[in-house]
Amino acid sequence: MVCEIIEEIHEECGVFGVYHAEDSASLTYYGLHALQHRGQEGCGIATMNGECLTAYKGKGLVSEVFRDEQIQALQGEYAIGHVRYSTAGGNEIENVQPLIANLEKHKFAVVHNGQIVNAKELRIELEKKGSIFQGSSDSEIILHLIQQGKGSFSERIKQAFQRLEGAYACLVLCEEGIFAIRDHNGLRPLAYASYQDGYLISSESCAFDVMSSSKEITDVDSGEIVWFHSKGITKEYYRKPQGVHMCAMEYIYFARPDSVIDGINVHEARVATGRVMAQKDKESGVSADIVIGVPDSSTSAAIGYAKESGIPYELGLIKNRYVGRTFIQPTQKQRERGVRMKLSAIESLVSGKRIILIDDSIVRGTTSRRIVQLLKEAGAKEVHIRIGAPAITHPCFYGVDTSSFEELISARMSDAELCEYLKADSLRFMEISDLIKAYQSDALCTACFSGHYVTKLFSYGTIIQAFYESHPLK
Amino acid sequence: MVCEIIEEIHEECGVFGVYHAEDSASLTYYGLHALQHRGQEGCGIATMNGECLTAYKGKGLVSEVFRDEQIQALQGEYAIGHVRYSTAGGNEIENVQPLIANLEKHKFAVVHNGQIVNAKELRIELEKKGSIFQGSSDSEIILHLIQQGKGSFSERIKQAFQRLEGAYACLVLCEEGIFAIRDHNGLRPLAYASYQDGYLISSESCAFDVMSSSKEITDVDSGEIVWFHSKGITKEYYRKPQGVHMCAMEYIYFARPDSVIDGINVHEARVATGRVMAQKDKESGVSADIVIGVPDSSTSAAIGYAKESGIPYELGLIKNRYVGRTFIQPTQKQRERGVRMKLSAIESLVSGKRIILIDDSIVRGTTSRRIVQLLKEAGAKEVHIRIGAPAITHPCFYGVDTSSFEELISARMSDAELCEYLKADSLRFMEISDLIKAYQSDALCTACFSGHYVTKLFSYGTIIQAFYESHPLK
Amino acid sequence: MVCEIIEEIHEECGVFGVYHAEDSASLTYYGLHALQHRGQEGCGIATMNGECLTAYKGKGLVSEVFRDEQIQALQGEYAIGHVRYSTAGGNEIENVQPLIANLEKHKFAVVHNGQIVNAKELRIELEKKGSIFQGSSDSEIILHLIQQGKGSFSERIKQAFQRLEGAYACLVLCEEGIFAIRDHNGLRPLAYASYQDGYLISSESCAFDVMSSSKEITDVDSGEIVWFHSKGITKEYYRKPQGVHMCAMEYIYFARPDSVIDGINVHEARVATGRVMAQKDKESGVSADIVIGVPDSSTSAAIGYAKESGIPYELGLIKNRYVGRTFIQPTQKQRERGVRMKLSAIESLVSGKRIILIDDSIVRGTTSRRIVQLLKEAGAKEVHIRIGAPAITHPCFYGVDTSSFEELISARMSDAELCEYLKADSLRFMEISDLIKAYQSDALCTACFSGHYVTKLFSYGTIIQAFYESHPLK
Amino acid sequence: MVCEIIEEIHEECGVFGVYHAEDSASLTYYGLHALQHRGQEGCGIATMNGECLTAYKGKGLVSEVFRDEQIQALQGEYAIGHVRYSTAGGNEIENVQPLIANLEKHKFAVVHNGQIVNAKELRIELEKKGSIFQGSSDSEIILHLIQQGKGSFSERIKQAFQRLEGAYACLVLCEEGIFAIRDHNGLRPLAYASYQDGYLISSESCAFDVMSSSKEITDVDSGEIVWFHSKGITKEYYRKPQGVHMCAMEYIYFARPDSVIDGINVHEARVATGRVMAQKDKESGVSADIVIGVPDSSTSAAIGYAKESGIPYELGLIKNRYVGRTFIQPTQKQRERGVRMKLSAIESLVSGKRIILIDDSIVRGTTSRRIVQLLKEAGAKEVHIRIGAPAITHPCFYGVDTSSFEELISARMSDAELCEYLKADSLRFMEISDLIKAYQSDALCTACFSGHYVTKLFSYGTIIQAFYESHPLK
Repeated sequence: MVCEIIEEIHEECGVFGVYHAEDSASLTYYGLHALQHRGQEGCGIATMNGECLTAYKGKGLVSEVFRDEQIQALQGEYAIGHVRYSTAGGNEIENVQPLIANLEKHKFAVVHNGQIVNAKELRIELEKKGSIFQGSSDSEIILHLIQQGKGSFSERIKQAFQRLEGAYACLVLCEEGIFAIRDHNGLRPLAYASYQDGYLISSESCAFDVMSSSKEITDVDSGEIVWFHSKGITKEYYRKPQGVHMCAMEYIYFARPDSVIDGINVHEARVATGRVMAQKDKESGVSADIVIGVPDSSTSAAIGYAKESGIPYELGLIKNRYVGRTFIQPTQKQRERGVRMKLSAIESLVSGKRIILIDDSIVRGTTSRRIVQLLKEAGAKEVHIRIGAPAITHPCFYGVDTSSFEELISARMSDAELCEYLKADSLRFMEISDLIKAYQSDALCTACFSGHYVTKLFSYGTIIQAFYESHPLK
Repeated sequence: MVCEIIEEIHEECGVFGVYHAEDSASLTYYGLHALQHRGQEGCGIATMNGECLTAYKGKGLVSEVFRDEQIQALQGEYAIGHVRYSTAGGNEIENVQPLIANLEKHKFAVVHNGQIVNAKELRIELEKKGSIFQGSSDSEIILHLIQQGKGSFSERIKQAFQRLEGAYACLVLCEEGIFAIRDHNGLRPLAYASYQDGYLISSESCAFDVMSSSKEITDVDSGEIVWFHSKGITKEYYRKPQGVHMCAMEYIYFARPDSVIDGINVHEARVATGRVMAQKDKESGVSADIVIGVPDSSTSAAIGYAKESGIPYELGLIKNRYVGRTFIQPTQKQRERGVRMKLSAIESLVSGKRIILIDDSIVRGTTSRRIVQLLKEAGAKEVHIRIGAPAITHPCFYGVDTSSFEELISARMSDAELCEYLKADSLRFMEISDLIKAYQSDALCTACFSGHYVTKLFSYGTIIQAFYESHPLK
Repeated sequence: MVCEIIEEIHEECGVFGVYHAEDSASLTYYGLHALQHRGQEGCGIATMNGECLTAYKGKGLVSEVFRDEQIQALQGEYAIGHVRYSTAGGNEIENVQPLIANLEKHKFAVVHNGQIVNAKELRIELEKKGSIFQGSSDSEIILHLIQQGKGSFSERIKQAFQRLEGAYACLVLCEEGIFAIRDHNGLRPLAYASYQDGYLISSESCAFDVMSSSKEITDVDSGEIVWFHSKGITKEYYRKPQGVHMCAMEYIYFARPDSVIDGINVHEARVATGRVMAQKDKESGVSADIVIGVPDSSTSAAIGYAKESGIPYELGLIKNRYVGRTFIQPTQKQRERGVRMKLSAIESLVSGKRIILIDDSIVRGTTSRRIVQLLKEAGAKEVHIRIGAPAITHPCFYGVDTSSFEELISARMSDAELCEYLKADSLRFMEISDLIKAYQSDALCTACFSGHYVTKLFSYGTIIQAFYESHPLK
Repeated sequence: MVCEIIEEIHEECGVFGVYHAEDSASLTYYGLHALQHRGQEGCGIATMNGECLTAYKGKGLVSEVFRDEQIQALQGEYAIGHVRYSTAGGNEIENVQPLIANLEKHKFAVVHNGQIVNAKELRIELEKKGSIFQGSSDSEIILHLIQQGKGSFSERIKQAFQRLEGAYACLVLCEEGIFAIRDHNGLRPLAYASYQDGYLISSESCAFDVMSSSKEITDVDSGEIVWFHSKGITKEYYRKPQGVHMCAMEYIYFARPDSVIDGINVHEARVATGRVMAQKDKESGVSADIVIGVPDSSTSAAIGYAKESGIPYELGLIKNRYVGRTFIQPTQKQRERGVRMKLSAIESLVSGKRIILIDDSIVRGTTSRRIVQLLKEAGAKEVHIRIGAPAITHPCFYGVDTSSFEELISARMSDAELCEYLKADSLRFMEISDLIKAYQSDALCTACFSGHYVTKLFSYGTIIQAFYESHPLK
């Protein structure tokens, strides 16, 4: 696994829905394909045809799991789908979504991106009442809460989501249509767009572009339920919205540059961070010969930096497009080859140059260190690392797998120590205020940079407290 | 699929458990392998290691689903496993067992062979209380009922199984050990044997023989729970036993000849049916040159017939051992080749002969018809079909997939009509009384022959009644 | 691999051809399926459509390698196919047949069962002339010899096969039709039967029965070429026939009981060996309670023994039908379980009994030893092993993989020593003269029993001589 | 297959070799991985260990075909490997390289990138002499020619390659080491670099960077054989070099930007073409708001254009990184979605803009047409297509699959007609002289733009002549 060699932050999921279209499963297939960057370990689609709920799911890429015969078996005019990144140990097929409530009466299905912070508390409560959990995914909690509600289905959905604390973008498929729900802090993205005489719903707007050139995108609001049904759309707040706190890492790293999230185009947000970084460097008198971005996610920020600074943008690092998922077991030597297999430097561009190297984040620091080494071996005179984000010092409990926080190097090292460790000539992270300036928006969750979580953390709170008591931040 | 070409009765499942052994997963692997004839579409194993429950399951044969790495990941000294035959439409991975209650406290797992006749009623009741079903298997009901019980885990198990009507052999794996439960009518087999300082538990005794030469086999009694725990065995009746009504098809068709079920060796039971059939033919003056059994399940009965009648037993029909599960799409012509691909006649043995052809059952009649044709084309002078069982006229609701009952040819045709349809020279089924005589036991369920079901049928009862009103039996 | 646990003799191949039929590829598929017992590691089909040669091949069973799309892509009215057992180390896809001469003019394809004893000499000679070998199979030599011949294609075939020493049944597919060639000692089987207005050609007649009930089978004669072409059949001796020396192991072990080879039905030949063994035992006053055959290949002989001796035939050993090809890595303990996974004893039948145990051969002795142990543990009082063949003391160079001859236990031990090693109560092999008596034919190759090879052995001769000088036979 | 939806030019192959290193197979694995962009349909590695030649190959990506066990089985200090793009119909496993001469004495193996233009003539000649071809790849001809040579192995290699006309970069592995051979017109790339105390040999230098930071790269010269052996390197011209005519498409499209081919860095060559295009546009007074490159191959040229013109470079088109190889069968509608699945526009960047769209080539025109539509639908005011290469009007016979030439749209349409078809606002190809100016080198093959082939075309010549007689160029 190359992903063992290269450090990465992992998004947990993407969701997609279609209400309504004759070829809803096929459209969902294409939508999930456009969201594939949000999760590559499993995927699934469920469709509703009258009272009949059909689902198919499997491990692997969308293009591996689904063949014509599966798509054709998924009959119905409404569909929801999911791509999944599974955290270590949770790779069981039980956790691949959609999760299905296969009931005698009123079947329904759920897909979910995010993380429920009071999951443990809810599970214990539900277990006491007699509920059974077959997998470990948070989504199973949602199934139970909906089923145990009172009143109409839409009432039960409201009741269920009122109980959930944390981050989520959810779709619920049932006889009455599709419900799209976003947490009341607006932590994870969810939007919809009209399509023919129905709607497409997606974690990211880039998935709409595959089907249509229409650009009328509406974000589901924080605390809002949008119900897509035969008579149109019904919108309702199931919980008082607390503003939008969009995960900053969506703009920084996860989302596709062509997506627009809560009104901000991802590429442009990155370009703007590049500009802000350049301004800072100008102020502090840093000069360099070329600007390089670590492909692919830092290209936009590097372009922004170059524009603002006037220092030319160069394609100094090339990415091998075939870095796959399976691999021969790495020896120590091969492990060192890890970065070289994924990235290589164009010597003629970097040799003798003072380089501004734009990257989007530093987690464990090992990849950054190897990239510096790669550039220096190719003749770079200086390497100045500029991270288009603040330093990650705190774990995320809202759906991003930032590894265990013992591994977060910025929780253990000061920037100066880290710069030395990376063997860089200088290192600068952004301030949170820079990010807000760049995005022209403070509707952000920056908990992983600041430790200021927008929700209560429940049992996770205790873990964090214990950790920072024994590991005071640098 | 050859199984589309060849008519067959399908057993639903086999269960196996180990309490306790260091290599419990590996032993379960071997046990399931010995029970592979009871289900080839999926299999799984769960192990308990302290509080930690691990499971792995997949579609396919035991030898296809499990590799070393899976077995090694299944740590713990207690294990249960399952092989599954899935009925049409229920082929989803959600239904592959063991089913897991992956709870924060007190995880457990269930495997199950049989059918719950009040499943629909229980599902509706549980749904009303807020329970969620993710698959369509009966076993999921068991999970819920256990979870919703009161008191100690063993109390909850008792309460759960008191609610279930129908046929079942169940194993429940939990921290406290393994519970083995058999329905109070004794409809499906379940037995255990000591192994080193622990126990093996199995649907059929043939699985014990793989591990050990010990032959001390104890059947779980009707209505009994046997709890295998750290201090030994605790036995208890959770429900008043109604005697044993072992599914006659186990002796006739499903079970391996080397198994001993409720004290009766399967091979010998079949030999005895052969003898009884021969006595009947003697009485009615039927004479023939050779006796042939349809391999493999009718070989024992054919040997019995030959011994009793003095007519020589011959290997007249040869079975291709490589009739696999996947196949090129059959054309009509190829469909007709179906029987020939599976069976062929030794011409020199059958040519010019009057043949007693022993088979174990007739479901739709198409296979039997083709076998008669095969023998006649090979030169057989007469073919007298003797079925080592009564005619199947009623559907089974206790775990045997006898197809929809519109397809049961004996529900539509008299024996004489059927004989003509098969182009046989004579046809004789056994009487139920013959079966009892042969087995020297009336501890049998013969519902599929007689329509006398030992339990209430709940919603199935209505279906049957409607059917036989419009299709009076011949 | 269970085959590492269980000792077995391996046949090298089966061939099948169709001239001519609209669905020739599909017919070949069914034919190969019927020959699957002759090789399970790979298979392939080639068809000829005008000048166009198409082939498809792969590793695995016929039903695994071929799907509808492959069969449909194989256009043409003539086809040949092959099932392969590969010896250790030769498992490369290059060796899977048919081998193709993909020439600009006059493409052809070859399938082959057998072994060329002067292969090494021919390869060296051909290499010197500039020929290239891409794989290690003997069949590649045949391609080259045909290509280097002079004159018409049929002339070139004759010239090619005149150079080959050893055992072979070959089919050559070309624009002019199909050529079927058998070695001039008649060591390997090859026959044909008419089918509609064309022909089927097969290693064993059992494959004809799948398509048709016609029983007109003609064996290709020793040293004969049969050319199936648009005007009918042309037969010719390319080499002086030296009589038929059919591999005795075909009758004893390999062939399906329903096949007729060189006029002898395999099942009946085995029954006759059983009778001869019984006569011998009668003469020497051996008495016993029951006769058991090791399934499946020894069932026929056991029936024969029972008939002749009057001692009842019993199904004392049951074979697990799901002994597959992949398996978890066996530990020592599991290795011992090997025989138990494959075979089990019916205790009630064998307990307290004196048993005649019929088997077809002993190679390394380990399996036989475990079967004796299995029976004794099930309570058998005495186990008398009767082998329906002489002891194998010499390696085969004619297409049978009898392992390296260091492993042949009868080359190292006298019968008395072997009996003691097996812990049997008595052991008797047949004499070669018994086999001839049973088959009423001396048209047999018995080299592996006697060391009298019907051909010169070339380089193999030196190996043998060296071995027996250092390992004098017991 | 997305590749059915998206038009592409296909490179035929990449080769890699290691002489000598303990872990030669593992190094070759990493080398082939770096060359994966040159062929994704199959790959293989052969190693030499004393006299013993081992090979493994399969269909699929390097990371799919090879696992640890295969790499470990490939023992030896010399290795060669191959990645393959197979043209339609030649997808048989027989054609996957290395091809092996598995001889009794002096085994060898060959890998090959390129195309032999006198292949047909050589095959017919070799067939007449008795040679057999099992596949359809040109490389099999090389095996035969080497084998039929006289004298030492190195002599035979020289004789063989003297017979070959066309384009090739070849590696031959044998007991004496590795021979690297390049055609005497220098049409395909081949270079080597020292590694520890041995050498790495590769189609592209990017593969060296994975192993080492050393940048000493030597190109094998036109008509040169470089023999890597135990005493070092021996270089020799087997044929009079005719200068270097490096395939221009290597710089334009195939090669990785970080490779240096015949002294020219690919990225810089592309940047320079961008500059030349910008100069032309300046001269003709074209003005625009932004420059966009079609990712990934046109990014470098777009950057060059932007630098020269001063028009800002923007990331206007985003590529989905998960466009895989398998796909659900496209309907007409889905086919139209093809480009949208692969590419999407960032609306905020392109809306209202006059765009310079840089692409590397136009083959059938359908993709370019859809990209224009995509940009216009995203609001682009004008789209000016600039192709970083001359128009392709002639087929390639030197190893590039430019489809059948009926499909080359520039062979059928004038630039003006094409511009209209694409619905672009203007369209400009480069002149061949521009390319030479950009690369500062005329050591190029430009046959596909000019029809001036550097070799005789043999049978292909007739085909071309016939075509252009009936399809006069516009």
